[in-house]
Amino acid sequence: MREQPPGVPVDPADEPRIAARRNPDELRVYGLNACMAVFNTRPDDVRKVYLTQARLGALQPVLAWCVQRRLGYRVVENADLDKLAQTQHHEGVCFEVRRRPLLSLSTLLQTLPRAPKPVLLVWLDGVGNPHNFGAVLRSAANFGVHGLILARESALNLSGAAMRVAEGGAEAVPIAQTVPGEDVFGALRNAEIRVAATVPREGELLYTATLPKRIVFVLGAEGGGLSQALIDRADVHLTIPGSGAVESLNVAASAAVLFGEYYRQQVALPRKPTHRR
Amino acid sequence: MREQPPGVPVDPADEPRIAARRNPDELRVYGLNACMAVFNTRPDDVRKVYLTQARLGALQPVLAWCVQRRLGYRVVENADLDKLAQTQHHEGVCFEVRRRPLLSLSTLLQTLPRAPKPVLLVWLDGVGNPHNFGAVLRSAANFGVHGLILARESALNLSGAAMRVAEGGAEAVPIAQTVPGEDVFGALRNAEIRVAATVPREGELLYTATLPKRIVFVLGAEGGGLSQALIDRADVHLTIPGSGAVESLNVAASAAVLFGEYYRQQVALPRKPTHRR
Repeated sequence: MREQPPGVPVDPADEPRIAARRNPDELRVYGLNACMAVFNTRPDDVRKVYLTQARLGALQPVLAWCVQRRLGYRVVENADLDKLAQTQHHEGVCFEVRRRPLLSLSTLLQTLPRAPKPVLLVWLDGVGNPHNFGAVLRSAANFGVHGLILARESALNLSGAAMRVAEGGAEAVPIAQTVPGEDVFGALRNAEIRVAATVPREGELLYTATLPKRIVFVLGAEGGGLSQALIDRADVHLTIPGSGAVESLNVAASAAVLFGEYYRQQVALPRKPTHRR
Repeated sequence: MREQPPGVPVDPADEPRIAARRNPDELRVYGLNACMAVFNTRPDDVRKVYLTQARLGALQPVLAWCVQRRLGYRVVENADLDKLAQTQHHEGVCFEVRRRPLLSLSTLLQTLPRAPKPVLLVWLDGVGNPHNFGAVLRSAANFGVHGLILARESALNLSGAAMRVAEGGAEAVPIAQTVPGEDVFGALRNAEIRVAATVPREGELLYTATLPKRIVFVLGAEGGGLSQALIDRADVHLTIPGSGAVESLNVAASAAVLFGEYYRQQVALPRKPTHRR
């Protein structure tokens, strides 16, 4: 691909095929909300901007910023974006951005409000589907989750697909990754955070449980669920009740329901004087 | 494809390419839970069974039934299932099944518990993504939703993709489709069911609202949300609260949160003597 002068849109007719080369520190983000969230929270991490003609209006602030920073943006054909994003779900925009480094668990824990203030975390143990990861991030951002913990062994990475599905939520939720052998339970205990494992049966029923004020919900892999070792060490075992017509909720639906119930107990209710505790 | 003797597995080496012909009354269902749900709820609707060698164990009851009914099943290669299902997400099994006919709205309403018994329905207005449809069905089945209403104009159809994502939930939730010009609001009012529209802002906050005992949650299209005409005519306007870090929850996450809160108020709480109302 020829270099283009900075701050100058490229005529689609002049645009050669865009190669799918990758820099490991960079990530191709696509989808309007996902791209705008990166721009709004960390514009200096935006390295390249590709958009279709139809998106010129919606991306005006980004393009003005590109011109100001002498950063090239490229108006490309839809088919070029299909190749760049390696999907058709790009909504006419793709940014090359610097990856946001994952935090260490101790760094994440240091940033949290101190006890006895409320803390809400989520710990994904073996969730492997980027769409589920993105959906959990979107719901986490909506309900103000303070951070997400990823097991080191996790197959997950913050991919473009996950970021698109998160609709900007990936920028709002700090993500930490554990290291092999790390004493995650000990670190959480020191931070006075209780580990709540979700189990399909025989846990405390979510809607009659009083959730700990400082909690991490642990969610297991699609299909396999949580490892028994993790279940054994958890402080609380929760079961989302149901009719039994399906085995369980999807992991992203479970996350939304758990975050929502925590929000109800910790945020929504205390605002009602009749429920003040 | 040659006809095979009924009740006899086909050697993969003998299996020619399987054409992707379609009968409009039939649907290709794939995914283990989706296929087993059809077999368990309406086995007579199973017309053909394709599976990989690796699924012979899990599908033993189905194969025994095929032999008994002199229905052919075919052990095929993974690549053949990719073509039959037109996706790789078939989990080694694909059934050709008779489509379950959609109900009329009046038929659905006739089957519901009479007032003042609780009723929970969901009405999808313009949801177009089969994965979201499937995810809503799975959560609906989990929380015992009595039925799902699809607008006639809906782009949705109960596809194999939706049924796979529903993990069997598509068999547990009756689905009705409205006809153009039908007085849906009038029919719901006659059935003493209140229409609750979900709106991004300025509705009653979900977690401090008392939900009507007989309710239909209306969920809007991805992106566009509900039509203004529908919002104007709704009896209740609900907003799922949030941090504002993302615009909204995904439609399937919204459904899970709404069904869960209804379940909490109507099913979970009344079992606690201290909360009996």
